[in-house]
Amino acid sequence: MVDGTRLWQRLQSLAQHGARADGGVDRPALSPTEAEAKRTIIAWAAEAGMSARTDPLGNLFLRREGLENLPPLLVGSHIDSQPTGGKYDGAYGVLAALEAVPEAPRRPVEVVAWTNEEGSRFAPGMMGSAGFAGARDIAEILACRDADGITVQQALEATFTALPKLPIGPLGGAVHAYLEPHIEQGVVLEQAGMPLGIVTGLQGKRTFAITIAGEAAHAGTAPRATRRDALLAAARAATALDALTADPADITRFTIGRFTVLPNAPSVVPEQVQFSIDLRHPDAATLLRLGDAIAATIAAAAQPCAARTEELSTALPSRFDAAMQDDMAALAQGLGLPALRLLSMAGHDSRFLAHICPSAMVFIPCLGGVTHHPAESITPADALAGARLVAAAMARWSA
Amino acid sequence: MVDGTRLWQRLQSLAQHGARADGGVDRPALSPTEAEAKRTIIAWAAEAGMSARTDPLGNLFLRREGLENLPPLLVGSHIDSQPTGGKYDGAYGVLAALEAVPEAPRRPVEVVAWTNEEGSRFAPGMMGSAGFAGARDIAEILACRDADGITVQQALEATFTALPKLPIGPLGGAVHAYLEPHIEQGVVLEQAGMPLGIVTGLQGKRTFAITIAGEAAHAGTAPRATRRDALLAAARAATALDALTADPADITRFTIGRFTVLPNAPSVVPEQVQFSIDLRHPDAATLLRLGDAIAATIAAAAQPCAARTEELSTALPSRFDAAMQDDMAALAQGLGLPALRLLSMAGHDSRFLAHICPSAMVFIPCLGGVTHHPAESITPADALAGARLVAAAMARWSA
Repeated sequence: MVDGTRLWQRLQSLAQHGARADGGVDRPALSPTEAEAKRTIIAWAAEAGMSARTDPLGNLFLRREGLENLPPLLVGSHIDSQPTGGKYDGAYGVLAALEAVPEAPRRPVEVVAWTNEEGSRFAPGMMGSAGFAGARDIAEILACRDADGITVQQALEATFTALPKLPIGPLGGAVHAYLEPHIEQGVVLEQAGMPLGIVTGLQGKRTFAITIAGEAAHAGTAPRATRRDALLAAARAATALDALTADPADITRFTIGRFTVLPNAPSVVPEQVQFSIDLRHPDAATLLRLGDAIAATIAAAAQPCAARTEELSTALPSRFDAAMQDDMAALAQGLGLPALRLLSMAGHDSRFLAHICPSAMVFIPCLGGVTHHPAESITPADALAGARLVAAAMARWSA
Repeated sequence: MVDGTRLWQRLQSLAQHGARADGGVDRPALSPTEAEAKRTIIAWAAEAGMSARTDPLGNLFLRREGLENLPPLLVGSHIDSQPTGGKYDGAYGVLAALEAVPEAPRRPVEVVAWTNEEGSRFAPGMMGSAGFAGARDIAEILACRDADGITVQQALEATFTALPKLPIGPLGGAVHAYLEPHIEQGVVLEQAGMPLGIVTGLQGKRTFAITIAGEAAHAGTAPRATRRDALLAAARAATALDALTADPADITRFTIGRFTVLPNAPSVVPEQVQFSIDLRHPDAATLLRLGDAIAATIAAAAQPCAARTEELSTALPSRFDAAMQDDMAALAQGLGLPALRLLSMAGHDSRFLAHICPSAMVFIPCLGGVTHHPAESITPADALAGARLVAAAMARWSA
């Protein structure tokens, strides 16, 4: 039985792990803070008689056994956050799933929290789900480093040490189906006045790492004619990319989120700039065309500096399972909950689960579409509506 | 007696304090590394029978007593470096002065190493000389913080603890005259084939701290029309400032050396960018006109983000003491050393000493004008020529 009050209290309680003074959440993937949050969730699952295990990538599974030994129904999301994140991105999916687990399913049900969905500590994100689905090389994932030089492998070992009683099972395996509840991170549901969204698919995404190589020089003496100023070159490149991705229909999403300068001293002409690019579009052809034009655009704008463009990840647009969407539409109608079909503009772990099993997503509205921000906000009523639809779908697909 | 071999060995030896793997030097102001370097210099001065003391800003004075109790002749420079600095910027001035101290002067002679000339750890630079000359408020200097939030006051206490036997005298006091030997940090002497430069003055400099305030948003969902992207706004501002300061005669020096982004995560639209501006020109009217146009240029380019421009320091162009220049020209001729009069394009502690006493500078060439860079290079012959002129000048002005 879905308890809306308990769900809301758990959302607020989990947000204490990594709470920021401004009301937001800073809970990096594989951090001590995230391990504490996992400990809390494991305790809640234990109260409901569910067992916990992890896997070699630190994904957390909370299992209710089924009457029959079948591949499990997986439902969940992630609990890591952006450095200036909110309380609900990811956490809502895990806690709504935990609230919605059926009592005595025929098929085993597992609530999952995937490792490093956000990609802000270790880039790119969705590491846990990509590794689980066999879409990324495990050795390459383990060797990724954060800004302090700590590898995923080292951070995983720290997490396993912090959670010593958590069994480590094998990576991957057969999955019956995957459902991910999540906040919309946009304004479509809010503007339509609908409490629920049935997600039809994900827009595509390409990410890049750019290095602009200039030459350090003295700010007071080096003549402009002799300078190779990496900061000004990067500024020209950013402005040129902004023009490249200009879109009157406002569908293209282009972001330079990370930007670091060396040596970053006021009276030294910068010798190097590294920056990230996040490019998204729901149409595969447009995503490919724009992404393929990035390297040349930067190289031209960065002159006389040298520029290197490395593609970190490519995810073409995804379509979710049609039968699961139809099931959820019928279930929502039966519950008297209005639901709208819509495309997800954000990426999610469901992108990789869809490679290996029928997958689906449920959205609830978030205030003003504000997300990845301390002001991220949802209502208790929408949180409950989402959990009720998730409970109905879990009951159906595990029966 | 000036010993060119000893001077060269000491330059190489001092460069070991903060040595970088690439041959450069990273010796932040008021760091443990700089304290070790001071310990080395104090030991060399003690070998020559000179006493050491510091002052409340950490300036280091190595004193040879005079036959009469008169205001001292001060000669020196600084030993802090840029993070990617070279072996000679600053260090040459201090070690050449130490090599050139007369044996039994009538007037006391003090070799000085000023605190935080570079301004890369604590901005703006020339803190020690500005405080000594009464040109900056001491409380404001002590409250300055580095990128880790450490104040000058805290860093000073750590330095005093690291050098427990160093007496702390009062700040400031009467000075007979100031001479600063330094590498040119330009190519004028090299191109003229001259070993020595007699500096006529310093170009003016204004520094600014800029804050661009946007709004954090999700890289995948936030439409461009609703974004206030602080990174793209800062890129437009940088490009607009580059255009504002364009100069066919290539005399204007404009640099954005430090640039930091918040939250600096790949899939979050940046909510804030802070950057530095370093603007220099030898003509006061031009310096004032360009500097005064900065705030409006940024505000227009940063739309729809808000921009705040704070001026950190203003130093109008300086002219050095004419009699000291004439003395040095005559002394160089007597030594058979060719010397050229030239303007300094870099700022120096002499800017502030010139407020309180007759001041002068001697330049030696540096290879290709490369400075603030690990490849910074000078020749032993030029190092010796500079020290010989400094010795002659010190002997004359302390006699």
